[in-house]
Amino acid sequence: MRRDRDFEHAYAVIMAGGSGTRFWPLSRLRRPKQLLNLLGERTLLAETVARVLPVIPAERIYVFTNDLLRAQVVRCLPQLPKNQIVAEPAARNTAPTIGLAAHEILRRDPEGLMVVLPSDHVIRKPGAFRRMLRAACRWAVVDGRSVILGLEPTRPDTGYGYVRKGLRVARVVGQPIYQVENFTEKPPLATARRYLASRRYLWNGGMFIWQASTLLRNLARTKREMARGLERIAQAGGVRATRTLRRIFPRLEKISIDYAVMEKAPDVFVVAADIGWSDVGSWAVVYDLQAKDSEGNVRPRASLCLNARGNIIVSPRKFVVAVDVRDLVIVETADALLVAARERSQDVGKAVQELERRGLVELL
Amino acid sequence: MRRDRDFEHAYAVIMAGGSGTRFWPLSRLRRPKQLLNLLGERTLLAETVARVLPVIPAERIYVFTNDLLRAQVVRCLPQLPKNQIVAEPAARNTAPTIGLAAHEILRRDPEGLMVVLPSDHVIRKPGAFRRMLRAACRWAVVDGRSVILGLEPTRPDTGYGYVRKGLRVARVVGQPIYQVENFTEKPPLATARRYLASRRYLWNGGMFIWQASTLLRNLARTKREMARGLERIAQAGGVRATRTLRRIFPRLEKISIDYAVMEKAPDVFVVAADIGWSDVGSWAVVYDLQAKDSEGNVRPRASLCLNARGNIIVSPRKFVVAVDVRDLVIVETADALLVAARERSQDVGKAVQELERRGLVELL
Repeated sequence: MRRDRDFEHAYAVIMAGGSGTRFWPLSRLRRPKQLLNLLGERTLLAETVARVLPVIPAERIYVFTNDLLRAQVVRCLPQLPKNQIVAEPAARNTAPTIGLAAHEILRRDPEGLMVVLPSDHVIRKPGAFRRMLRAACRWAVVDGRSVILGLEPTRPDTGYGYVRKGLRVARVVGQPIYQVENFTEKPPLATARRYLASRRYLWNGGMFIWQASTLLRNLARTKREMARGLERIAQAGGVRATRTLRRIFPRLEKISIDYAVMEKAPDVFVVAADIGWSDVGSWAVVYDLQAKDSEGNVRPRASLCLNARGNIIVSPRKFVVAVDVRDLVIVETADALLVAARERSQDVGKAVQELERRGLVELL
Repeated sequence: MRRDRDFEHAYAVIMAGGSGTRFWPLSRLRRPKQLLNLLGERTLLAETVARVLPVIPAERIYVFTNDLLRAQVVRCLPQLPKNQIVAEPAARNTAPTIGLAAHEILRRDPEGLMVVLPSDHVIRKPGAFRRMLRAACRWAVVDGRSVILGLEPTRPDTGYGYVRKGLRVARVVGQPIYQVENFTEKPPLATARRYLASRRYLWNGGMFIWQASTLLRNLARTKREMARGLERIAQAGGVRATRTLRRIFPRLEKISIDYAVMEKAPDVFVVAADIGWSDVGSWAVVYDLQAKDSEGNVRPRASLCLNARGNIIVSPRKFVVAVDVRDLVIVETADALLVAARERSQDVGKAVQELERRGLVELL
């Protein structure tokens, strides 16, 4: 795909400061999910960058992470200019980060178009993703518009945000674009079921496209104080003004861009992106996405399964033998071992909370 | 218990040459079950020696093992004279070894009484065991008699040898002693069930008491060639005649003492030994014999079980987290990891056969 006019002003803003617990013991505080190669050779973060590189060049890609991870992120992304890999001085959720990024982009390009992307999701159709991105950029290039790449729900998940499709306003690059009627964060199960059945809702996967100026204008309207703080950082030199950044940023309101801006902004649109998306929320999902042996096991070469089915085994160090076991997650690292029921693998997070409660910090 | 007249001529012959696969990955070719501390601080072999030491002094205890294991056995049993820890030059099952031991004992004591004991079983009532031993020795001190310490069957196991109780001939140290009517090795399940229901059978656990001279006389009657070979070794100097031993022993018939002698010998008696015996045949048995947490897990301190029940976890190196899993065996060693269904843990042996078939010798 050529770097054409649709992407002329596009900047990628990749959010890589997150931490999670559901991939313990592989994921740790110092090695969260985006830095794991759960599904291939490259980390999810490296995949995210590789996915946009055909349409947005490295000099227009920003990655926001934290102090703990920055060195690893830099190593993981040698193709990016180091000064575009920014460590936030504190975790303030997505709104302050995106505001900071908007100032950064605006400084370089008054017409700068922001493409906000999470770094720990999987997109199995990168071509379709870039086509969607083109559609979204073409639509968002008009001042004042915000676009969400929405995902068609496949189950009544209660952990996601839902976006209600309103009026169908256009068709861009073959895709219908809808006005957003409203947002619902993490609905109860009955509601989620209703949403799914209605076919009028899309999942919000945290992928946004808008002009940097649009975002800042919307933010100033809804979060005046945050906007003012970000303004002061920008005037001092933005992400390069380390002292100002460290002083002001940690005091900005800790809030997601969804709550801070999206739910109240005018001209928010959504497009259904059929891009093979998954947020890879648990070991069970990793199992689903991987190639399996004839007994339905995902496992390394150095393993033996005897009457064992449906297991996922991750063990780079040891030979693993599984005998007469079903649907397990077996993950071994240098200092820890997890054995969990695959269908309950989201509970791994609870186990990690318990480790934390017991003060077993070296295991976190 | 004093070392009294009942044990005056008693010599222990401990069989420690065996190898098994059902405790893989903890047990290996070079570290078989008798050298594992499956149930406490000491190895099963060390427990076996400690159990007889109150009645049979170290200078009358022999341990038979093999070349691969002898150095470890010596380290494991510092209280024994090294020249009484004998490496068989080849694995020929129990008959040749016991014959060799009989010559050794006879050389030292014409009235020598042999107490043959496996080294990889558990006896949870060592006091009762020594009382049984006293009864058996008192009965076997009469020339020509052989005594088996039998075990009351608790299930229709098809892996054991069964001994049918005949005439009750005496009561020694409070124990009824029976003539043996016949032997059955590894009966089919229906037969084993019948035996169990009849209450006329005892398990043969490989614990025998007889005079060394009696054994050699019986052996000469049933296995003339083996007896002749052993005689030649004895004349050359017995276990010290290394060259002769290495030349002749490997050519002796490979056969168990049960088949070679017991089934055809006259004056064989059996006594029901209520000694808390277990042959610890699988991880499931280790689980049964160990203390459990409130959820029925056998596990190390460095572990966390979240809605996990009935598991046995062995992991000296790593912190183990078990989530939503039931009745598993989880065993971790430096180079291998086993996860198996507890109730099918005898199948671990099959997995090890498969490793062998694949030529993964470093894992055996």
